[in-house]
This record gives sequence, C-alpha cells and structure tokens, in this order.
Amino acid sequence: MSTVPSRQTRPEPGILRDVPIFRDLDEGVLRRLSDIGELIASTDGTLLCRQGELADRLHVLIEGQVALSNMAPNGVSAVVDVVRPGGHFVLATVLARLPYILNAQAVAQSRLVVFAAADLLALLQDAPSLAAALMRAEAQDFRALVRQVCDLKLRTTAQRLGCYLLSLSKDPAGNSASLRLPFDKRLLAARLGCRQENLSRAFAALRGVGVETHGARVVLHDIARLKDYAEPDDFSEAEFA
Amino acid sequence: MSTVPSRQTRPEPGILRDVPIFRDLDEGVLRRLSDIGELIASTDGTLLCRQGELADRLHVLIEGQVALSNMAPNGVSAVVDVVRPGGHFVLATVLARLPYILNAQAVAQSRLVVFAAADLLALLQDAPSLAAALMRAEAQDFRALVRQVCDLKLRTTAQRLGCYLLSLSKDPAGNSASLRLPFDKRLLAARLGCRQENLSRAFAALRGVGVETHGARVVLHDIARLKDYAEPDDFSEAEFA
Repeated sequence: MSTVPSRQTRPEPGILRDVPIFRDLDEGVLRRLSDIGELIASTDGTLLCRQGELADRLHVLIEGQVALSNMAPNGVSAVVDVVRPGGHFVLATVLARLPYILNAQAVAQSRLVVFAAADLLALLQDAPSLAAALMRAEAQDFRALVRQVCDLKLRTTAQRLGCYLLSLSKDPAGNSASLRLPFDKRLLAARLGCRQENLSRAFAALRGVGVETHGARVVLHDIARLKDYAEPDDFSEAEFA
Repeated sequence: MSTVPSRQTRPEPGILRDVPIFRDLDEGVLRRLSDIGELIASTDGTLLCRQGELADRLHVLIEGQVALSNMAPNGVSAVVDVVRPGGHFVLATVLARLPYILNAQAVAQSRLVVFAAADLLALLQDAPSLAAALMRAEAQDFRALVRQVCDLKLRTTAQRLGCYLLSLSKDPAGNSASLRLPFDKRLLAARLGCRQENLSRAFAALRGVGVETHGARVVLHDIARLKDYAEPDDFSEAEFA
C-alpha cells in the first residue's frame, strides 16, 4: 500500500530523537520509525492535509510552521492552532483512520517527517513503548485543546495575547524579553480568535503593562506585570510533571 | 490493585451495548468489560474526578449529567463541557495515566459505570477491537474540542446559544420544536463561555428568529430561520459517516 521511502528521504533516527513525542523511545524503535518515515520539504502555502479526506498520514514538523484550520459549511475558516517545530498533526484522527477534521497548511518554508498511517499502526502492534508514547501524545493534544477552550472562555483578547507573548519569551527567569512574532498579524488574530482590529486594540491595551511593539518585533519590559494582567496557565501544573 | 466489583454492582452487558463508544464490540468483549466495570450512583454535586489527581478510572455516564471544568491558578473555573447520558470522561488522560486536567462533578442525580484504568489497559492488550474502539473514541473527543474551539472563535454568543438549542431539538425534519433546558442558566452560560447577563442578551437576540423562552422551557418556532442565523456545523460531515 504505502511506498517505502528511498534512503535519501529517510529521516535519521537522531532527528526523531529530538521530537518530544518520540523522546523516550529506545534506539531500536527510533530506527524502525526512521525506516517508515519520509522527510519532505514544503514551500510556504502547501496544503498538507485536506479536511474531509481520509487521514492516512501523521506529520511531524521539523522546521517551519503549519497552520491547522477548520472550515465551516458557510466557508468561514477558523485557525485552531499554528504548529511549531517539534509538534505533530493530527494524531488522534490518523490512529482512528477517520477523515481529517482540519486543513493543514505550511505557512513558512517547512521540513517535515511523514508516516503512513498503515505503517505506523503496524509498528504500534509490536512496539508497546511506541503505543504508550502515542497515547501520551494524544493526551497532550487533548490537554492543549482543553487549555485553549478555557482560554477562550475565561480571558479577554488582550489577556489571550498577553499569554501568547509570554509563551514566546524563552527566559523564564528574567523580567524583560525581546522577541519576534513568528507569523503575521492576520494569522495571529485568527489563532487568538479575534478580528484584526481587535488585535490592534489588544496590543494597545498591553502597552499599559509594558508591552512595546514595532511591527513584528515585541519588547516585554515588565514580565511580572504582564503575568499579573494576563494570568497565564501555571505550566508546572498544566504540563505533565 | 483494583478491586473486583461485587456481582450486584456489575453493569449488565446490555447497558454497555447502548453506550456509543462500545457499540461495535462483540458479545465476548462486552462481557469482559462488564466483569471489570462497576455501576455506581452519584447524588447531585458529587465530585467524581479531581483536577491534579492521577487519572485512574474511566467513567461512562448512563443517566444524569456531569459537568467537566478546569480551574485556573487564580481560582476561576471554566466549564469545558456537560456530559450527557452515553458520554464518557476522560479517556485520553486515563489511557495515558496522567493527572486529570478536569474536575468532573455530577450536576444531577446520576448513574455511571466506572472502569479502573489498570483493568482497562490490561483488557486492551488482548482485545484489539476494544483498542480500536477506544482510539475512535479518543478521536471523537478530540473532534468535539476542535469543534468547540471553532465555535468560540467564529460565532457570537447568540449564535452559540442558537447552535446549542438546535442540538437539543430531537426532530431534524420539523420546523418547530418545544424543549426544556437540561441544566440551569448559570451552568449554560459557563458552558457557552459567557457571563449570565450576556446569556440573557443572547436569548433576547434570538427572539427575533423565533425563539421563545419561559424559564427552562424553550420553543423554537422557526428552525430554518434559526439555522440561517446560527449557522450550526453540518453534522453529516462533522460526525463520522
């Protein structure tokens, strides 16, 4: 059914070891994953999964960015998430062999590893550590969506933007950070679930808590104050200790 | 580790056959599920799962209602969903043996079947049809959350309320329906992700498209018009054909 990738396009086991969902797998399983994986490159704009088609492959993002969106019957599209390197899509649907509920589109030049669902399900059968890893990953995906539902129900747009900016700042110890928005403001508004004019208003509201913006460059001058305002999730609890 | 339920509290296989996630299982697997399941009764207000504790049991709701909520570090709680009979919680977290991310609280007199995670995982190992059924169920849970994220990002509160009322009307063919809200307006507002005063405004807005309310009783006078207004998901596509 699925074609075996040629040697050139197989991902090295080392690449897979850096992917969080595969982190705890031993060398042997990583090698077998590498044997069924295919490394692909996608240009900005490529549609990788199409809503409604049978989910026949799992994607792991190595480099770049991929937007996951769902189109309503009236043609309006909601951006559910933007996947960053190390992330994957869409595990639960692929393991259950159901139609994709999301469109996945590269929104930057990207490199990915693709696993055919049939190969992955076959490998699952005799690699219990992979089965356990993927169950954990499904639970993580579920949690991320629960967190997003809560975010949308409880926070204002400005608070959601604040939480998002805090998630981009790498240094948890410092009280200031300089960062670059990883994608354009149109996509950022869609990811946060607001109109573009509301995003501008949210940035304006955050000025009062030390957030300075120049196009895609953002400086957080007072992280403690921004945290007080946006009340981000406590990740030590939210992540899996 | 887990105790074997006494004969009196074991659910009959017939009860399990009516649960959607178990629908396609054969008699033998249903009997083995019945052997590890325990039928319990909960009074209104009972806390069945506590956020942060190890997820050590799967609950299937037979009768009643259970609210799933997540409490933020600041003590504010968001209602993620209200489970109706035939539903379950919280599969992905239980299969991955992680801490519950949600509180589950009975919001009506309820009857449930409880499966200890250890027993369920053991049964999974030698019942591939159960493994497949639970993978499908996880994918369904994922989809329900994706749909809710889109709902929150794209629709106004009045549209979300309209979609919710449409989901309660049993007869898909008729153009009018008389129904009763299954829980109080405080919980309904929390489930929809709005303040109670916004829920009142949303009900007022829906009056213009033929929605009449008297306390918990609701009459939809013109379902076609309400659908035009609220633009509900196309369930033939959203559900798994």
